[in-house]
Amino acid sequence: MPRLAIHRLAMAHPGDLSELETLLRDGTVRAGEIRAVIGKTEGNGGLNDFTRGYFTQSLMLLLASQTGESPAALAARIPCVLSGGTEGALSPHYMVFAVEDAEATGQRGLALGTSFTNTTPARDIGRDAQITDVMEATRSAMGRAGISRTEDVVLVQVKAPAPAAPDPAARSQDAKALMALSRAAAAIGVARALGEVPDGRATESALLSDLPLYSNRASISSGVEVTCNEVVVFGYADGWAEGIVAGVAPMADLLDLAGVQAAFAAAPGEVLGVIAKGEPDRSGAIRGQRHTMLGDTDLDAQRHLRGALGAIVAAVAGDGRVFVSGGAEHQGPPGGGLVCVFARKR
Amino acid sequence: MPRLAIHRLAMAHPGDLSELETLLRDGTVRAGEIRAVIGKTEGNGGLNDFTRGYFTQSLMLLLASQTGESPAALAARIPCVLSGGTEGALSPHYMVFAVEDAEATGQRGLALGTSFTNTTPARDIGRDAQITDVMEATRSAMGRAGISRTEDVVLVQVKAPAPAAPDPAARSQDAKALMALSRAAAAIGVARALGEVPDGRATESALLSDLPLYSNRASISSGVEVTCNEVVVFGYADGWAEGIVAGVAPMADLLDLAGVQAAFAAAPGEVLGVIAKGEPDRSGAIRGQRHTMLGDTDLDAQRHLRGALGAIVAAVAGDGRVFVSGGAEHQGPPGGGLVCVFARKR
Amino acid sequence: MPRLAIHRLAMAHPGDLSELETLLRDGTVRAGEIRAVIGKTEGNGGLNDFTRGYFTQSLMLLLASQTGESPAALAARIPCVLSGGTEGALSPHYMVFAVEDAEATGQRGLALGTSFTNTTPARDIGRDAQITDVMEATRSAMGRAGISRTEDVVLVQVKAPAPAAPDPAARSQDAKALMALSRAAAAIGVARALGEVPDGRATESALLSDLPLYSNRASISSGVEVTCNEVVVFGYADGWAEGIVAGVAPMADLLDLAGVQAAFAAAPGEVLGVIAKGEPDRSGAIRGQRHTMLGDTDLDAQRHLRGALGAIVAAVAGDGRVFVSGGAEHQGPPGGGLVCVFARKR
Amino acid sequence: MPRLAIHRLAMAHPGDLSELETLLRDGTVRAGEIRAVIGKTEGNGGLNDFTRGYFTQSLMLLLASQTGESPAALAARIPCVLSGGTEGALSPHYMVFAVEDAEATGQRGLALGTSFTNTTPARDIGRDAQITDVMEATRSAMGRAGISRTEDVVLVQVKAPAPAAPDPAARSQDAKALMALSRAAAAIGVARALGEVPDGRATESALLSDLPLYSNRASISSGVEVTCNEVVVFGYADGWAEGIVAGVAPMADLLDLAGVQAAFAAAPGEVLGVIAKGEPDRSGAIRGQRHTMLGDTDLDAQRHLRGALGAIVAAVAGDGRVFVSGGAEHQGPPGGGLVCVFARKR
Repeated sequence: MPRLAIHRLAMAHPGDLSELETLLRDGTVRAGEIRAVIGKTEGNGGLNDFTRGYFTQSLMLLLASQTGESPAALAARIPCVLSGGTEGALSPHYMVFAVEDAEATGQRGLALGTSFTNTTPARDIGRDAQITDVMEATRSAMGRAGISRTEDVVLVQVKAPAPAAPDPAARSQDAKALMALSRAAAAIGVARALGEVPDGRATESALLSDLPLYSNRASISSGVEVTCNEVVVFGYADGWAEGIVAGVAPMADLLDLAGVQAAFAAAPGEVLGVIAKGEPDRSGAIRGQRHTMLGDTDLDAQRHLRGALGAIVAAVAGDGRVFVSGGAEHQGPPGGGLVCVFARKR
Repeated sequence: MPRLAIHRLAMAHPGDLSELETLLRDGTVRAGEIRAVIGKTEGNGGLNDFTRGYFTQSLMLLLASQTGESPAALAARIPCVLSGGTEGALSPHYMVFAVEDAEATGQRGLALGTSFTNTTPARDIGRDAQITDVMEATRSAMGRAGISRTEDVVLVQVKAPAPAAPDPAARSQDAKALMALSRAAAAIGVARALGEVPDGRATESALLSDLPLYSNRASISSGVEVTCNEVVVFGYADGWAEGIVAGVAPMADLLDLAGVQAAFAAAPGEVLGVIAKGEPDRSGAIRGQRHTMLGDTDLDAQRHLRGALGAIVAAVAGDGRVFVSGGAEHQGPPGGGLVCVFARKR
Repeated sequence: MPRLAIHRLAMAHPGDLSELETLLRDGTVRAGEIRAVIGKTEGNGGLNDFTRGYFTQSLMLLLASQTGESPAALAARIPCVLSGGTEGALSPHYMVFAVEDAEATGQRGLALGTSFTNTTPARDIGRDAQITDVMEATRSAMGRAGISRTEDVVLVQVKAPAPAAPDPAARSQDAKALMALSRAAAAIGVARALGEVPDGRATESALLSDLPLYSNRASISSGVEVTCNEVVVFGYADGWAEGIVAGVAPMADLLDLAGVQAAFAAAPGEVLGVIAKGEPDRSGAIRGQRHTMLGDTDLDAQRHLRGALGAIVAAVAGDGRVFVSGGAEHQGPPGGGLVCVFARKR
Repeated sequence: MPRLAIHRLAMAHPGDLSELETLLRDGTVRAGEIRAVIGKTEGNGGLNDFTRGYFTQSLMLLLASQTGESPAALAARIPCVLSGGTEGALSPHYMVFAVEDAEATGQRGLALGTSFTNTTPARDIGRDAQITDVMEATRSAMGRAGISRTEDVVLVQVKAPAPAAPDPAARSQDAKALMALSRAAAAIGVARALGEVPDGRATESALLSDLPLYSNRASISSGVEVTCNEVVVFGYADGWAEGIVAGVAPMADLLDLAGVQAAFAAAPGEVLGVIAKGEPDRSGAIRGQRHTMLGDTDLDAQRHLRGALGAIVAAVAGDGRVFVSGGAEHQGPPGGGLVCVFARKR
């Protein structure tokens, strides 16, 4: 029966895959069993962050040398979701998710399924077409994982596309705004697949404006390095080996320590990985006190956010290897976000 | 009998003293009773952060308009300790410490005493002369506050000098290094006054090298805006009104959430102010995981640190108005720091 | 007869007015004769640059101590145009423009006139109301200077308002966009006053979109520190003493070295001050080669621009004391800008 | 006879080698003839700039696919000198230097020779051992190019090593200081090979202190990506085809426009490539006016420098494709630097 394995590995720099290389060499991981990679590189997390591309190229080269497939074929099959920026307490690392063939242990366990949408043209980004595609891909990934009920889904991680060049047909001519629209559309697509929002209201006109619509189980990043939506679903399913647990909890705002602690409580055991999303409160204040994240000419708002959110989650985890990503449009409550913890059950 | 009052006030920008102006106008605060101001402005916290000077000029102008003294005379009497940098969850604010004349309430309460050393010439910064001066000023401030035992001291906040221009006689020709030496000397001076370190070992040769020597109750900042060491001591003393409590706890490292919680537990009640010090671990790792604070060309290590430490402390406080300052040489354990909480006893 | 005097002074930090203090003390400058101050402080030039406010506060305090007027009254009378950001070769400095009473020397010379519009409410920023107001203030300032023909105007420097807080009635809810609209409206107002653009086309709908409309003699900055448009006009007029000359030339793009040289050739003599405006080419390329100013997460586009433009102008001047400001909407050709040189005729 | 060919190519991002791929495909360039690559990527140019590694990985992969050699073997043979940071007017690009086999055209032309030293252990960096090695490698590269006289050398470009991890035996424990020492040692090594400095004085004790010792023809960068000194020499030699010319000139300070113009005048024709080195004046002033490059907490001194120097050189070139690199220790006059121009003779 399939068994999910999670390996959390350090990197000395964004092109350093030596820890995975060691695991492949000693047989701990088989290249053909790798289904997704989620990691944090030490760039600035913005448009001109090339640490993501460097890591991806290095990863695919390594896997190609093992499987005989081309790097391009591997990239079209294995979602590689990277977030740049390891501000403050954060530590550069990546999580390798593999599905091994195990002897039966238990009846039901944490499952993983992936699905890629068709290519999303620039004109469809942030539109109903993308929402619908992500909704269907989420259902498809659930199906492949054998997750039958939406309430069994723990987290849907999506890497959504952004156009590499301006397109007059696009919903926005501002590259950063279009990336936000892409994240928003993917989040709403997930929310609809999971039944978290009403279909009639959760349409393209709601994106970035109807903020009370959100998913508590969607974590989305967007980037020019992909041209379609790459979807990874985690949830519980029959027929998967036991041993790995996962929990997720929303954060009401950036200082919601109890929310972070709830996510860890929901996945008791040895922590194998943590994913967190958040955003600077658009009102310019947190619990009534002014913050300065949104108007700093020298330090990007997302770098501010990751440094703060990352430190809080890392302090609870006791470990800086936390995947923290900004841009939490429709992902968790506005001004807040969510935390997902993977652990080996003790 | 004297009663310590703490007012925590917001600022819209570094020249905005309007909240204090209101308190002065309505009589809540009397200008003549203000003994110290400690605050965070929204600059970058570095050599070219002028928000500290702007705030100080604005503060002294306001107080001068009330007391009739000159701004220079006020600055020579009232310690004004500012730290630039409100990264992440932090909120620009300042704490006004006043000593009112109260009717007797209780036998013993939190006391405040201040003392200024003589001018420290550039050649004495980071030398035994500065250590001894700060040690004596700490004792003098304790005496003025009526704090008789070193164990009754909660926190010693010092603003230490840095030369405005290079001086061939100085211990270092590097402006940033000299600021660190000044903080280190002041911290060791406090540690000696409080009996936290052995006198024979805690001398100028130990500065920045014998890191196991530190004070758990010293919080030091340095800057070119002062030419002597300005010392503020907080502690318990007979003859002061009850009502305000303070607690302090060390942080073993940046992720020491329990340490932060211990400081809040030591000062139960309505929080009136929080002071925290910390530093990026010099080893380049926290609990074995690499951090990237020390090698980032774009984002200064202290900005990284304040964003992370500030968020953790703010998450425990549930409030972004936390005074967080980097440069914690000999202030708390190496790679860690300390947290001090002021509260109104409930 | 009136004689324009220009004093270019250095500052050690944004609160340092000591050089002007010396000139006031020794009688070189009389406080009552100061008509405008234009300077560069060493901040980041963005929303959170407080070096401008610090300098202005310090300047007005100094002048108030000399004239007996209040700082507020002085600020309402003397335009103080500051641009933050002294990247690269640039040097922090300020130019004091005074009008002295001189014995007659010549028939015609460089004249200065100032005019303030009424307060511009947030809803009028970037609208026809602001365009018209600046057009009329430009004419009024010309009249006060005695400049009778538009072709005699060399430069119109405007400090335009930005609202301190969001206003639902404003043309944009994005603070940076509104600052750009304010600069654009003021530039078009100047262009209309000088007859450089057709009135019917140069209306609010043209702002930031009809880029071929521009003034070659307008230099605009905007900021929350002013609530109206402060206009300073320089040009030649009868009845002013000889001795100072000024020249202006457009820059076709950022690399237009010949344009810079033309401005210096137009004002031969000992250089007393230089003002330059420019902007990162919106196409993302200069003469067909990609630039990276607009997509850098770590370094603001305007900091990129000032460092580059400032160095080119400083290299021609042989002196880093150049007032360089970004945000050149409708000020000089798109992607380019303009340079104005003041000199003492030899 | 050998003929030097220079191809200046644009990149859309640091992993984009498509322009070279096109030239290889259409036969304009043969992979086996490539001898050196010198380029500018759009990172921050500091310790955490990974755009250099990403480009190098991509380049070597491409060449490996053409030549059949391994990427590692290619990297050990072809110097790839990259400088991160395309501030302001600068444009990301790379210059491919190839040596073709041409039919005889002329008697004497611009020649290129390369040489690699043995691995330099950390303890030898910034020591006489490195100076001597670079001196000998420079002579060796001259020999391979057939350049017989030192006065025929135009430029020596060196990529010098920096240790990837701290080493107790190293001359400095500060990573940035050690990189500077490595550049300094390589520059003095070149200067000695070219007879520009006296051997007895130009030893390890002179590095970073005896600044009047310098080469006017050395351009050095250092980085952890190399473990030895990679030397590329350009100069005139018999037996090379005519057609390409090169000129070099020192810059006395950052504003030395005449120096830049002299370099272009020394290589008349269609510009094929430009290399410039410079540094922020350590005195804190340029021609007596204070600059702020060295004390900016938010913007690294080298980013300031490249933005300014790059713009001046690009303005003279009329083209942003200029290789500008900071860290000009002993490379050109202190506070200044040098400019080298390659052109196709018209």
